[in-house]
Amino acid sequence: MQFHLNGFRTGDPRVREAAARPDSPDSNARGDAMPDKVDVLVVGCGPAGLALAAQLSAFPDIETRIVEQKQGALTHGQADGIACRTMEMFQAFGFAERIAEEACWISETTFWKPDADNPSNIVRNDRIQDVEDGLSEFPHVILNQARVHDHFLEFMHKSPRRLEPDYSRRLLDLKIDEDGAADHPVTVRLERTDAAHEGEIETLNARYVVGCDGARSAVRAAIGRSLEGEAAHQAWGVMDILARTDFPDVRMKTVIRSASQGSIIIIPREGGYLFRVYVELDKLAEDERVANKNITVDYLIAATQRILHPYELDVKEVAWWSVYEIGHRITDKFDDVREREMANRLPRVFIAGDACHTHSPKMGQGMNVSMQDTFNLGWKLAHVLQGRAAPQLLHTYSAERKAIAQDLLDFDSNWARMLSAPTKSAENPDGVDPGDIKEHFVQIGRYTAGVATVYPPALLTGDSTHQDLAKGFAIGTRFHSAPVIRLGDARPMHLGHTVEADGRWRLFAFAGRDDPASTKSPLSLLCAFLESSPDSPVVRYTPKGADIDAVIDVRAIFQQGFRDLEFAAMPPFLKPLKGRYGLRDHEKMFCADLKSGNDIFDMRGIDREKGCLIVLRPDQYIAHVLPLDAHEALADFFARFMLERA
Amino acid sequence: MQFHLNGFRTGDPRVREAAARPDSPDSNARGDAMPDKVDVLVVGCGPAGLALAAQLSAFPDIETRIVEQKQGALTHGQADGIACRTMEMFQAFGFAERIAEEACWISETTFWKPDADNPSNIVRNDRIQDVEDGLSEFPHVILNQARVHDHFLEFMHKSPRRLEPDYSRRLLDLKIDEDGAADHPVTVRLERTDAAHEGEIETLNARYVVGCDGARSAVRAAIGRSLEGEAAHQAWGVMDILARTDFPDVRMKTVIRSASQGSIIIIPREGGYLFRVYVELDKLAEDERVANKNITVDYLIAATQRILHPYELDVKEVAWWSVYEIGHRITDKFDDVREREMANRLPRVFIAGDACHTHSPKMGQGMNVSMQDTFNLGWKLAHVLQGRAAPQLLHTYSAERKAIAQDLLDFDSNWARMLSAPTKSAENPDGVDPGDIKEHFVQIGRYTAGVATVYPPALLTGDSTHQDLAKGFAIGTRFHSAPVIRLGDARPMHLGHTVEADGRWRLFAFAGRDDPASTKSPLSLLCAFLESSPDSPVVRYTPKGADIDAVIDVRAIFQQGFRDLEFAAMPPFLKPLKGRYGLRDHEKMFCADLKSGNDIFDMRGIDREKGCLIVLRPDQYIAHVLPLDAHEALADFFARFMLERA
Repeated sequence: MQFHLNGFRTGDPRVREAAARPDSPDSNARGDAMPDKVDVLVVGCGPAGLALAAQLSAFPDIETRIVEQKQGALTHGQADGIACRTMEMFQAFGFAERIAEEACWISETTFWKPDADNPSNIVRNDRIQDVEDGLSEFPHVILNQARVHDHFLEFMHKSPRRLEPDYSRRLLDLKIDEDGAADHPVTVRLERTDAAHEGEIETLNARYVVGCDGARSAVRAAIGRSLEGEAAHQAWGVMDILARTDFPDVRMKTVIRSASQGSIIIIPREGGYLFRVYVELDKLAEDERVANKNITVDYLIAATQRILHPYELDVKEVAWWSVYEIGHRITDKFDDVREREMANRLPRVFIAGDACHTHSPKMGQGMNVSMQDTFNLGWKLAHVLQGRAAPQLLHTYSAERKAIAQDLLDFDSNWARMLSAPTKSAENPDGVDPGDIKEHFVQIGRYTAGVATVYPPALLTGDSTHQDLAKGFAIGTRFHSAPVIRLGDARPMHLGHTVEADGRWRLFAFAGRDDPASTKSPLSLLCAFLESSPDSPVVRYTPKGADIDAVIDVRAIFQQGFRDLEFAAMPPFLKPLKGRYGLRDHEKMFCADLKSGNDIFDMRGIDREKGCLIVLRPDQYIAHVLPLDAHEALADFFARFMLERA
Repeated sequence: MQFHLNGFRTGDPRVREAAARPDSPDSNARGDAMPDKVDVLVVGCGPAGLALAAQLSAFPDIETRIVEQKQGALTHGQADGIACRTMEMFQAFGFAERIAEEACWISETTFWKPDADNPSNIVRNDRIQDVEDGLSEFPHVILNQARVHDHFLEFMHKSPRRLEPDYSRRLLDLKIDEDGAADHPVTVRLERTDAAHEGEIETLNARYVVGCDGARSAVRAAIGRSLEGEAAHQAWGVMDILARTDFPDVRMKTVIRSASQGSIIIIPREGGYLFRVYVELDKLAEDERVANKNITVDYLIAATQRILHPYELDVKEVAWWSVYEIGHRITDKFDDVREREMANRLPRVFIAGDACHTHSPKMGQGMNVSMQDTFNLGWKLAHVLQGRAAPQLLHTYSAERKAIAQDLLDFDSNWARMLSAPTKSAENPDGVDPGDIKEHFVQIGRYTAGVATVYPPALLTGDSTHQDLAKGFAIGTRFHSAPVIRLGDARPMHLGHTVEADGRWRLFAFAGRDDPASTKSPLSLLCAFLESSPDSPVVRYTPKGADIDAVIDVRAIFQQGFRDLEFAAMPPFLKPLKGRYGLRDHEKMFCADLKSGNDIFDMRGIDREKGCLIVLRPDQYIAHVLPLDAHEALADFFARFMLERA
């Protein structure tokens, strides 16, 4: 965490310096009216909307607003699964540790099946480690979605924009000025729903609108899209309960299949006592809706008690419960531009999260994928709004995220089908063997951890020509962090934790075997190129007067131990002078952590002779792997989408 | 972190349920007047006072107030060193991770001396790892004292008492009702100093008063004590600066001795840019005061520049600076009871921190020892106020902490003398060899980390008869945490992090080789004794109706892997039912972390055949090591000072 660069400030450094906002004098005063014009209007305060608003609130020069129908912040229930990958994203926002502290960690998943000798009883069938070793430096955790919201809200509150949601506002309609000449081409009408302003209509103009307004998205409807897909007829109930039980695995994630009473999944929750139970309900008939079945929480409890037999369950309090049908649906495109118009039109309205894909909640994927949607979109919007990139960049959002959502749906319907199928037995020879469920669960571990996402080669993702230089940093996947020692202060840390949710690109230059201090070393030559060549992306894209790392943050990693290198002898480009005082940044160079045995060069398969250059997107995905001397290829990559500084 | 035990609550679980305070209806309303009566009045909002107030604020039934002369919370400067041991204490308060995230980590200390070939230049002489491997799971960090205050203030604010400091109040005098009959025998007069109330006098009665009011303590004066000791005449300057420099070790802790310009110490600070410089000043003449020498910050900067030669230093901003003399002084006793009266009188007024010991700030010890003073006192006051222990317990505070303070002074004057002595050279054959400084620094590593404290056998510290059962848990030292796997949910964690600053005792029962599930195993027999014997300290001291772990929290650690034990088969005492619903606590049992290779039984030298029982004080110090079957000895130990429940 860096601060005090432009002068000593008292108090919590997480409270960022407030933006001056010269272009919008009224927005500092949080009156209760909306401004006439905004850069980005986010609709919906769910995980997708808040991740986006938080990301955008970090930019002092972008005017963002987020509106929500409800009257205030969420307090109860709904999603609770937080994948390792999501924790990595939270780290970039600075609150992963707080979440880890408060959440329930899932370390082990167990599987129960009918006792062969006495099928009315369940017995533990198997158990597996929930997240494979080394998959991420973060655990898989479970926490009330409301608390995830709270952390984003706190981040926004302390951000340069001091952004707060505008509650009690319902989207009535939106209209896009099709001729594209207007600066703020999207006209939005909002209806206020709180008692004091009920029925008042606000009209505002936005450069961009993002619908994070859930499965019944009004934004999606306004751009003429709909959710399509399989209308599964399996219904499930879910309840968060405080209960006394002698079932021993109630603090593990547990999948239980009874002989004839159906299935439940137990998810332990934060705080040591609360847990969630997903209860399989009867299959719905064609055209039947779960809402019509009048399922009560007592019904869910009774079903759970039957399935848990011979274990007892005495429910003391139900914190939240719901019933739902599994619908696996997706919309055809995540923005307002039709496929055939893409060459001529630029997107102005986007949808994200449940607004574009719905699925069963039981693998805990929904909240995670939704936040990854907008973490993908946020930096792109910022790049375009700040004039760093051409607006064609925005086409990549739908292209990248739709493929991921389709994957999720396929994955999820398989899993849901498997859970709902009858248990294999003499009467059900075609049923599912409980062993197969475990097998499947192991296979999909990387998927559920959120680290299986791969963006294929495209505008933002390079080809695999030089992938061999860093076998463990697959192009298109998220940067898989590893431990290093910082040269300037010998601090052990995670290299990936240098990445903040600040919209910057990173170049991680892994030096080869040569002495990095030599001016002839490939690393020194790369630094010289980056620092002063007119072709250098750092030179080209960094605004005049900004810090040298304001757009592209270059860091170097050496294979030598930190005591074997002299800070003073390193290339000046890696010791930049920054801020109003021109103070030296000592945090750009790292060494392998030789003492712990966790050598990042070994862990990630870096070519020790040649080293390599990793190009990292602002959302932590690996855009490219290049040789250290591929100066031109590097320049060409950024030239695909970046705009030279004005 | 456990919560929701007595029902689901929305929002941040760190915000504890507010106390009802039936005994003091006025104190919920934070008017600006003081109540007439309080249980504890803390004087002074420094680290000692805030650590105490935070500790006491956790008890819903104790009325605490903390007053401070200044008008508000500290924002700048003063102490900055946070030892590993202090981080362990912060962990018990729940904010160690936040501090670690924000602070500067000290991983390496370097030593510079005059270049033999060109003595006007300095060269790096040596470097050492700052904290030896395995000394603590926490790093040695540096952070503005004001931010440490902020974390304690936040803890208080969220505590059951919702405690806030009462600023702008100066202690005028205090008087102790010597006949001891009064419930609230200490009468205190406070003068209000803010503009709105200037000159108003408030009188209140307290059961106990604790003076944490610094080196010029008014509380100390009121009980007729004074600081005595060596009046050293070495003066030092200190400044926190933002500066541009090419000195390469500015992000390391660095001790620099120049040939003829004196010494400086550099302490890197939080945020990556700020650093502190301690500058040796000329020796003061007898009776000379540093205040009279008119040292300016420009003088300090110029001296630093001369010493750093040939490196450059361009100071851009001075965040804070000061000059001081090193005084090594201590008061003879830390409470109001004279040595010879101890058998007949009970202490009512205590002093802590700088009010009883002053020393040089350069080893970063002061703030740490001060907080450890009141962490020692806090639980004892709570025990007595809650009727858990006889008030004689309070005599142990001065006895334990005075010895520690005396140690600190001896240690500190050695170090200060060593730093101020001239460098050994042809002209100064009796000077200090820079190599000796490093040597000394290595030796005192455990001391400066704060883990060298040992309380000798006394009321609260058992004898060493059974120390061999746990060689790595030395009686009288702080509990040295190690990794374990929680049995109930397979979570990897630190055993020591189960200890919260909640005034509870802990029994850590390390099981021997036997099957812990057998009712004949020493562990099962211990559990049976603790659960139901009339001699059991759990039975004796737990108030009726309170949770079984409300006073003594018993946890078991097994040497088997977590998959080799069945939760269901374990002694019921280790799976207690708690709270208004009688929910099962699944967090009392742990297994060695066999996979990581960090087996707590090996790391801490636990006897694998016999196991052992560790008795842990509420302040994380090891009170006793006993065999698992020493039921009577265990009962006897607690009977020394605890009071049976009413």
